[in-house]
Amino acid sequence: MNAKPLLFGALMLAASAVGEARAEERQAGYVQLAELYVDPAQLESYEAAAKEQIETAIRVEPGVLALYSVADKNNPSHIRVFEMYTDVNAYKAHLESAHFKKYKAATQEMVKSLNLVPMNPIILGAKGS
Amino acid sequence: MNAKPLLFGALMLAASAVGEARAEERQAGYVQLAELYVDPAQLESYEAAAKEQIETAIRVEPGVLALYSVADKNNPSHIRVFEMYTDVNAYKAHLESAHFKKYKAATQEMVKSLNLVPMNPIILGAKGS
Repeated sequence: MNAKPLLFGALMLAASAVGEARAEERQAGYVQLAELYVDPAQLESYEAAAKEQIETAIRVEPGVLALYSVADKNNPSHIRVFEMYTDVNAYKAHLESAHFKKYKAATQEMVKSLNLVPMNPIILGAKGS
Repeated sequence: MNAKPLLFGALMLAASAVGEARAEERQAGYVQLAELYVDPAQLESYEAAAKEQIETAIRVEPGVLALYSVADKNNPSHIRVFEMYTDVNAYKAHLESAHFKKYKAATQEMVKSLNLVPMNPIILGAKGS
């Protein structure tokens, strides 16, 4: 099992040497998938609040690595947020931030169900930017 | 609606100017969430096959931006893959790649259910690397 990250590292170096796209394995100490159902009549307002919250969190919170908010193409009220933090303390700090509390208050009546699923990474593969 | 990306761009520049963490909004023309249930007895083999496939795809396929494979902490047989591609053609090319076909054949008897959910991004917020 331990050979895998080493192999991946070697492959990345090899790819770099021959000029292929930079690949990397991201590190995130806390990963979570949020599953939301939002009132269809308030979807536009929800999306605006989510965008504002996420823009701010990524900009000002060092431990918030990524917040990917997406809507089911065939059922836009079903929203998923793929969340990556440096560690669980960064996630806890995020929950206490002013921008997150503002978002929670603003969307309280819009979000009809919320399911938070803590995740263990198998592999977080991504292009380097 | 159109003011949001501009605002986010302005915020990124502002953050950059004052030395805050680099934030960015990722671009991905095709985003999908895969929901899998894997035979618990074959989970280790499944994870090895998934890692190999993802490492290769990120390294050799220019249109594969990210493949984040994660397992539910409380039920590791429930696996999610958050997938980002440059566009739908990159996704189609991925399905035809040798490494993906090898993975599909190898895991055919391990994956007990598979649900593919095409997604529309609301916002793909992430730290620059």
